[in-house]
Amino acid sequence: MLVKFLDMIPWMTLRYCLRRQSSPLLRMLVGSDRPRVLEPNEAISIMSDVSEAVHLLEGSSRIREFLRQVLRFQPVPLHSVARSTSLTVPVASALRRELEKRKLLSRKGGIVLTEHGLSLLESIGVRETQIPGLQSGYPFPEWLNPVVEKLDILLSSRPGPDFSLDQSHADTATIAMRAAYLYEHDGIEGKDLLFLGDDDLTSLATITFAKKFGLQLGSVVVLDVDERILEFVEETCVSIGCDIQTHCLDLKYGIPEQLKNSFDTFVTDPPYTVTGLSLFVGRGIEALKPGVGGQCFLSYGSKNPSDSVKIYASITSMGLAIQEVIPEFNSYVGAQIYAGVSNMIRCVTSEGTSALIPEDLSTLYTSSRKQR
Amino acid sequence: MLVKFLDMIPWMTLRYCLRRQSSPLLRMLVGSDRPRVLEPNEAISIMSDVSEAVHLLEGSSRIREFLRQVLRFQPVPLHSVARSTSLTVPVASALRRELEKRKLLSRKGGIVLTEHGLSLLESIGVRETQIPGLQSGYPFPEWLNPVVEKLDILLSSRPGPDFSLDQSHADTATIAMRAAYLYEHDGIEGKDLLFLGDDDLTSLATITFAKKFGLQLGSVVVLDVDERILEFVEETCVSIGCDIQTHCLDLKYGIPEQLKNSFDTFVTDPPYTVTGLSLFVGRGIEALKPGVGGQCFLSYGSKNPSDSVKIYASITSMGLAIQEVIPEFNSYVGAQIYAGVSNMIRCVTSEGTSALIPEDLSTLYTSSRKQR
Repeated sequence: MLVKFLDMIPWMTLRYCLRRQSSPLLRMLVGSDRPRVLEPNEAISIMSDVSEAVHLLEGSSRIREFLRQVLRFQPVPLHSVARSTSLTVPVASALRRELEKRKLLSRKGGIVLTEHGLSLLESIGVRETQIPGLQSGYPFPEWLNPVVEKLDILLSSRPGPDFSLDQSHADTATIAMRAAYLYEHDGIEGKDLLFLGDDDLTSLATITFAKKFGLQLGSVVVLDVDERILEFVEETCVSIGCDIQTHCLDLKYGIPEQLKNSFDTFVTDPPYTVTGLSLFVGRGIEALKPGVGGQCFLSYGSKNPSDSVKIYASITSMGLAIQEVIPEFNSYVGAQIYAGVSNMIRCVTSEGTSALIPEDLSTLYTSSRKQR
Repeated sequence: MLVKFLDMIPWMTLRYCLRRQSSPLLRMLVGSDRPRVLEPNEAISIMSDVSEAVHLLEGSSRIREFLRQVLRFQPVPLHSVARSTSLTVPVASALRRELEKRKLLSRKGGIVLTEHGLSLLESIGVRETQIPGLQSGYPFPEWLNPVVEKLDILLSSRPGPDFSLDQSHADTATIAMRAAYLYEHDGIEGKDLLFLGDDDLTSLATITFAKKFGLQLGSVVVLDVDERILEFVEETCVSIGCDIQTHCLDLKYGIPEQLKNSFDTFVTDPPYTVTGLSLFVGRGIEALKPGVGGQCFLSYGSKNPSDSVKIYASITSMGLAIQEVIPEFNSYVGAQIYAGVSNMIRCVTSEGTSALIPEDLSTLYTSSRKQR
């Protein structure tokens, strides 16, 4: 009789009752395979277990953020959630597997939450809202399109990435935006510019940008360990009638004397290890003219909190003053472990700026150490 | 005869010749009060002299930026240039005086460049362009207007700022944006929130935001040394039917045991000294629940590069991982030495997070030390 009565209640209403009231009677009646409301402590303990299962250095709060991003934008591709939660794709993928195993997530044209997942979020205070996302960062402006179109033509025959050197190409919109960002922050006009490692070809983007808008550059120098890139940069510069100097060298062994104390600005997208960052930034500092206000434009992927602290500690220990940190400024072509994005970190030199080159350079590239 | 001929040349053409060609003959003919083209070294030496004259800790590159901002947006108010070059208003004002004395700037409905100023910029490669500014940061979204309107009503009878405590009110649009930013980064829903010093009344903005969008908050606690603010927060919360806890205390003497290890998120806009920042952030860390991923939302004005390095060194030395730094996120009411704006710095805790409270707390507020 009671079961008959229950059949008459629309399922949505029942689900509502279950989620809001957690009535044991109702739960008993509809069976244990139905979603039940969790206690907050239960939810926290589940997230903590998942965090341990995937060895998540970002902590269980990142799992909460992960589930919340799914709630806001479901169905959502793994890459998007990885990007918005600053997780690498392999870590996000392991996390999704674990959450699926616990029936919190499933897939329907992207990741979606199950009833159990919704219930977990509800128990810790997270509900679906109609709040739009905030627009952040630097939206790509229309007027940069001609620069991107020119770059697409110029770079069509660029050399492919050498993964052993942590190369992966920033897309042409990104390098055009880097040039515009340099201009915005007085990093171009009459400035002596150094590109420290340039498989992204930001040097060519900067030259193209300057040509398009009639800007005068100082000297432009590109350093790389990869001859192919330098050849391509040189040939392209000849073809468009611009001056550039290139030097093939491994930053491990230092930079030539004539390049020291010579630049106003350096631009780099170093290997994704703390050692790699410290080495590249250190060499950049050696190359800058002495004095306050030299500029560093540094592209760098998000790290787990512990590594992130090491990175900023390295930057500040060399006396660079952070001016801006823009998440997801850079997008890269193809599938990347960093979900195809990285931060732009803008710094200036202070009175106490001085290079600190790491002693142990054996783990410079991610390929030289065990991947997480 | 030649002079007669010269009279026939339009002045603009002559000016063009002078600026482009630097013809000694032409210069001799038109007299020494006419602008002449500078050599780059002369320009650099002038900027270096000005930098020394105003004791500019930001270095002469900041003077270049200052002049370049005038070129891009002239006629421009002092406050705007101060803001876009991250200089305090007193420093920007001293700089303007010095640049006026050297006839590089003048005033015509705002700061403008003289011919001499244009010539100086030209000599170091900076010319007028038609490049639009990049849109940056977090533009205020329309949908937040109802929250701002509500706050304007709620806060109309707020207590005035106590300048001895470095108080100065963020405007209501800013505190509404802070709430939206907290939401964007999962800092609100079901979270236990601590506001460390709250003359900005960000706590009330967060509660208003949560009420408007039906968000569930955890516990909300406000600490301040100023009884007037706490009373105002309490009364306002009673009037809108929300729960809040307040504690009147001076952070110098520590926080009560029951508040330690208790929060998911802390929000602070500390006094503008390195000591003030370290103390407030240190107490915030003590108040956070242990573990990775605790959140710190820190509003802080731009400093000169040396102080800026100290600030980020302090943050990283406590094991906080920087996630984002947004220049000019916060706007304040009234004339401020920081040109009415400050940065938003978002951090999370890492495995190694631990408070480091400065030993000497005698220079906590800017009023307790000599102003620059």
